[in-house]
Amino acid sequence: MDMNSAVTVAVVAGVIGLLFALYQRSFVLSQDEGSERMKQIAAAIQRGAQAFLSREYRAVAILVLIVTVALAGLSQLPGSGMSILTAVAFVVGALASGLSGYIGMYIAVRANVRTAQAASRSLNRGLRVAFASGTVMSTMVVSLALLGISLLFITFVNQLGDAAQAASALAGFGFGGTSIAIFARVGGGIYTKAADVGADLVGKTEAGIPEDDPRNPATIADNVGDNVGDVAGMGSDLFESYASSIIAAISLATTAGIFVDDGSIEAAQVFPILVATAGLVISIIASFLVKTEEGADQERLLGSIRTGIYSASGLIAVVIIILGLSLPFGDKNIGIIIATLSGLVGGVLIGYFTEYFTAATYGPTQALSASAEGGAGIVVIRGLALGMMSTLAPVIIVVLVTLLATSQAGLYGVAVAAVGMLSTLGITLATDAYGPVADNAGGIAEMSDLPEEVRDRTDALDSLGNTTAATGKGFAIGSAAMTALALTAAFITALTAGGSSALGSAVNPADLLLNPQFVTGLFIGGLLPFVFSALTMVAVGDAAQQIVEEVRRQFREIKGIMEGAGEPDYERCVAISTDSAIRQMLLPGVIAVGVPVGMALLAVVGKGNILGEFIAPISLVGVLLGSLVSAFMLAVMMANAGGAWDNAKKHIEAGNLGGKGSDAHKAAVVGDTVGDPFKDTSGPSLNILLKLLAIVSLVIAPLIGSAFPPI
Amino acid sequence: MDMNSAVTVAVVAGVIGLLFALYQRSFVLSQDEGSERMKQIAAAIQRGAQAFLSREYRAVAILVLIVTVALAGLSQLPGSGMSILTAVAFVVGALASGLSGYIGMYIAVRANVRTAQAASRSLNRGLRVAFASGTVMSTMVVSLALLGISLLFITFVNQLGDAAQAASALAGFGFGGTSIAIFARVGGGIYTKAADVGADLVGKTEAGIPEDDPRNPATIADNVGDNVGDVAGMGSDLFESYASSIIAAISLATTAGIFVDDGSIEAAQVFPILVATAGLVISIIASFLVKTEEGADQERLLGSIRTGIYSASGLIAVVIIILGLSLPFGDKNIGIIIATLSGLVGGVLIGYFTEYFTAATYGPTQALSASAEGGAGIVVIRGLALGMMSTLAPVIIVVLVTLLATSQAGLYGVAVAAVGMLSTLGITLATDAYGPVADNAGGIAEMSDLPEEVRDRTDALDSLGNTTAATGKGFAIGSAAMTALALTAAFITALTAGGSSALGSAVNPADLLLNPQFVTGLFIGGLLPFVFSALTMVAVGDAAQQIVEEVRRQFREIKGIMEGAGEPDYERCVAISTDSAIRQMLLPGVIAVGVPVGMALLAVVGKGNILGEFIAPISLVGVLLGSLVSAFMLAVMMANAGGAWDNAKKHIEAGNLGGKGSDAHKAAVVGDTVGDPFKDTSGPSLNILLKLLAIVSLVIAPLIGSAFPPI
Repeated sequence: MDMNSAVTVAVVAGVIGLLFALYQRSFVLSQDEGSERMKQIAAAIQRGAQAFLSREYRAVAILVLIVTVALAGLSQLPGSGMSILTAVAFVVGALASGLSGYIGMYIAVRANVRTAQAASRSLNRGLRVAFASGTVMSTMVVSLALLGISLLFITFVNQLGDAAQAASALAGFGFGGTSIAIFARVGGGIYTKAADVGADLVGKTEAGIPEDDPRNPATIADNVGDNVGDVAGMGSDLFESYASSIIAAISLATTAGIFVDDGSIEAAQVFPILVATAGLVISIIASFLVKTEEGADQERLLGSIRTGIYSASGLIAVVIIILGLSLPFGDKNIGIIIATLSGLVGGVLIGYFTEYFTAATYGPTQALSASAEGGAGIVVIRGLALGMMSTLAPVIIVVLVTLLATSQAGLYGVAVAAVGMLSTLGITLATDAYGPVADNAGGIAEMSDLPEEVRDRTDALDSLGNTTAATGKGFAIGSAAMTALALTAAFITALTAGGSSALGSAVNPADLLLNPQFVTGLFIGGLLPFVFSALTMVAVGDAAQQIVEEVRRQFREIKGIMEGAGEPDYERCVAISTDSAIRQMLLPGVIAVGVPVGMALLAVVGKGNILGEFIAPISLVGVLLGSLVSAFMLAVMMANAGGAWDNAKKHIEAGNLGGKGSDAHKAAVVGDTVGDPFKDTSGPSLNILLKLLAIVSLVIAPLIGSAFPPI
Repeated sequence: MDMNSAVTVAVVAGVIGLLFALYQRSFVLSQDEGSERMKQIAAAIQRGAQAFLSREYRAVAILVLIVTVALAGLSQLPGSGMSILTAVAFVVGALASGLSGYIGMYIAVRANVRTAQAASRSLNRGLRVAFASGTVMSTMVVSLALLGISLLFITFVNQLGDAAQAASALAGFGFGGTSIAIFARVGGGIYTKAADVGADLVGKTEAGIPEDDPRNPATIADNVGDNVGDVAGMGSDLFESYASSIIAAISLATTAGIFVDDGSIEAAQVFPILVATAGLVISIIASFLVKTEEGADQERLLGSIRTGIYSASGLIAVVIIILGLSLPFGDKNIGIIIATLSGLVGGVLIGYFTEYFTAATYGPTQALSASAEGGAGIVVIRGLALGMMSTLAPVIIVVLVTLLATSQAGLYGVAVAAVGMLSTLGITLATDAYGPVADNAGGIAEMSDLPEEVRDRTDALDSLGNTTAATGKGFAIGSAAMTALALTAAFITALTAGGSSALGSAVNPADLLLNPQFVTGLFIGGLLPFVFSALTMVAVGDAAQQIVEEVRRQFREIKGIMEGAGEPDYERCVAISTDSAIRQMLLPGVIAVGVPVGMALLAVVGKGNILGEFIAPISLVGVLLGSLVSAFMLAVMMANAGGAWDNAKKHIEAGNLGGKGSDAHKAAVVGDTVGDPFKDTSGPSLNILLKLLAIVSLVIAPLIGSAFPPI
């Protein structure tokens, strides 16, 4: 199959995906919204989410504009090696990513109230509505990415007449997506945890009122946060991983050289597009398998989700084998099949181990719960240790997948492994985006005093959401690491394209491994995730503090608020969270873009003079590898420690170890407070950091490469 | 100056150092031990420390024996490239390190009671006794390392007739030292924190009795812990950094090649020995400058310590310049001076920034204290963020030192920078080893009801010790990172000695940077510190839990214990801490030695077959670089977060933010509990982990190298 046919197929599938998303959207919106009270609450959440996203997108639009102008300007520099099409791809990527996040959130804040109402009728109806809203975002993300990449690539090839340059310009698409994602993840992450921690500290701890109690002025902000952080942020994050893995595969197919001899370059370019296309269609089909029956317990609910995911994985595996055998790969077909499947299996395994370390049904989290009897200090130590230990499985899995994939298909193998891992995103992301909707549904049920049995159902749905969220986070990190590795491979390969001497000429291995710029680059790269996490954690703390003060002020000044007579000023808390998040997301975002750009410029400027002793293109390679290692570890540790603390607390609240109000429970709440920014702000932001560093480098690689002509 | 003369000078200085240590020992032992009660308490601490060290050394002796036999056996394998002298050096290194730790602790547990008694007379007398005991260990460490290295090196050169092989065998000395250090740090670290946390949890929190109260059955174990963890562990740790930095410099002088052309190899070998020799003599002189007067405040006490350290730094800088100018380095003399001085300055700067981030007199720890008003969760989040942010300065400093040193003198520059950083260890380590003595003196004063004014003096001395301990930890980590970097450089260089193809032949840089074995090695290396920290943190938690149960049991079963009528069973708590520490130190220790050995063996076995696709000598290079980056970050983060939590708690206890017993204080205590294993167990153990991985690799490098003959 040639590229034109593959793009045609991909476009058809992309359009089918968009139509399916529209269909699911209509299904969700056609559901009953319930009572007036429920509508009011939902409307407040919708206003808050809308307000945040508008503010965020306005702020980000300015940055997108600046970067677009910069990219366009660079492309006009004589001999920069960059194409103006990179700027075009950047804008399209940013728009597509922004649109995915927006629509995902649009539907999520409307599905929450409808899920609550549907749960009044049955558990299955609740699950269906919530899950359908998740599929809206997931199919939007996958369809837009697939449409964008395939249409841009074929256009660029026609325009530039050269697949390598086209692939290089295509990196702009991923860059555009990541630029939105970094702000969505960091800003949304700060928002959600500031509101959550702030609401809990005063509401639960000081005033002793339950979570989601309508008397708590921060409760609407808390519910808004679930959507802006977990839905929009997660959507942009995975949009980017998905797009970048395909772009890296196309790029490496073009530049890596192993496909040149037997003329299989086009097959290697077409393969990731076709795998992604098939994955989209399969995910849509598999999403119909997610359903349950009344009175289903946690295990059965989880089983229904798993049926969907595992069926999709099984089907895509078959398609990968067929594609690998039928495309003209010469003698590399078996190798490419193995590489792609290794990523698919690796993704499933990472999900499993994440669940093992964070679910209260397994040993680690049960031991963590038990340690709460030793007090807050002990539970924090144990949780940190659990998070650290949990890095073992994902790292070993990524290492094995990488070794297997490269042994079979070189660097291209890493990229298609990432494509394989993400091929079922159309359904895995749906299970993830479902979580906040179920969580909000529970909140709305609580706030509108729905009957006990409805809340039991929404609790069951919410609890399922927590598990899928943890698994989804593990998957997001693992795929981010694979994607970043593939992007780094594409960057290094691009750096030496055309015989550029950016990395020097052939050398003794020992000299290169001990190159001081490279080694110090590793240190700087290792440092970035720590600084980045420190900034985001402090941002959450600061913003939460403001919410705490505002809630205390309202409790003090608004008369009758505790008796339900006075109306809390929800908008004020929403505004505070929004302001803090927008203000504090800028520095981390600018660091993530600024460091590689700044280093690249210094490396170019330092060529041949004293500055070059300290910084060179290889420094940036060191930064990418160092940050990859360090961010991967930290992200897994934070996500899993956070998930385990959360579930340990819930385990105690379920009546174990003295239940709610016991000393063990108080200790577990401290752990959960620490875990909140870990798992929902800093940890997830690291995914984007590592991908952003790599994709920015890839975008500017031609600039560096052309500054160092062949010797 | 030739090697024979340099060794003569070093031996003379080493002997002077030992005599000075003996003199200081007599000075300390000649002091008054105070009342019978004080003698009794001190005797209990001495017994406990002795018991622990005997148990530890017995356990370690078996491992040392096994490793010695393995090294000797390997050297007999035909074509292994290893010398039997490596095994000899290993045993000598282990003995010297063990002896340093033993004598340091021997004097520390005798100086504590004498310091308490001396403080009854004046603050200056207390300071002098405590500091003198610190100099016993510091000069022992430095003298034994210097004697061992210089005598072994010249003997090996004579025996083997080849400086490169002699340098290679000398690595065994560092390996021997590190083998003791890993168990001393991990075992001692577990002991000290298990006893401390356990004593506090029941004593302070449940029973409401003060720290060091004689009614607390764990109080003797707590005091023993200060010595076995902080004195013996720190001594073995820095013995190893010190020895390894010199060994790496000698090794790189011999193998790195830049000194071959102008025949300056011998100068380059002699230089680190002479710098170290001068540093020892200067440290002894400078230690006489440490004194104070009655009524000195914290600032003045710190000033007296700083006078000693800064004078030593200034003097050694002059000596480094003179040596650099007078040795026949050809045109490289200025470069070598700059490289060595950059390390010296870097060490001082790292100490300064550590203090900035952890002392309550600066912004970060004050902000941390203030955040305690937000509750335990917030103070933990802030402390973690502070620790993460504090990695910035040391990393940038190490990066700049590395770039400067290598730009001036290649890889040899990194090694002499480490030698420069550690050149004043004779005094910096004394300020460190002083801390636990002062801490114990305070405990003994408390337990024996000495007058208020004496306790004020011991409190002042203790508080100073906390600051020097934090600075010392920063310095230990920074120097460990520099040393490990130098060792890694020596390893990589040794791997390719004699044209070995262990790392392959000259290649395109892009291919090497993306070598999958290398990149996955980085991941595995990055992972190890996380797993290692998880193991040590859990070990502390488990051991503390046992202490808690034992103390609760004694409070329950021993009649009249709370009224002071019944005698607590101190020995039982000492035994429990000892047993736990010995049992739990083994796995982390075995991992640290086993991973590089196992990988090296697999790499050799996998040569030329399918296994070789997954593991190769370059995998181990990746592991070393990955663990270096990751362990450095984690170690700094843990040490500084721990130090800041400790001081934030003390800041509140000093009457700020509501003082003792306030909610803020309770929150700060949680932070301190988390910080305890961070700063005293897991963090410091990482120093050894990263050095041990590197030195084990260096020791077995000839084995790997000879398995891959030149192509």
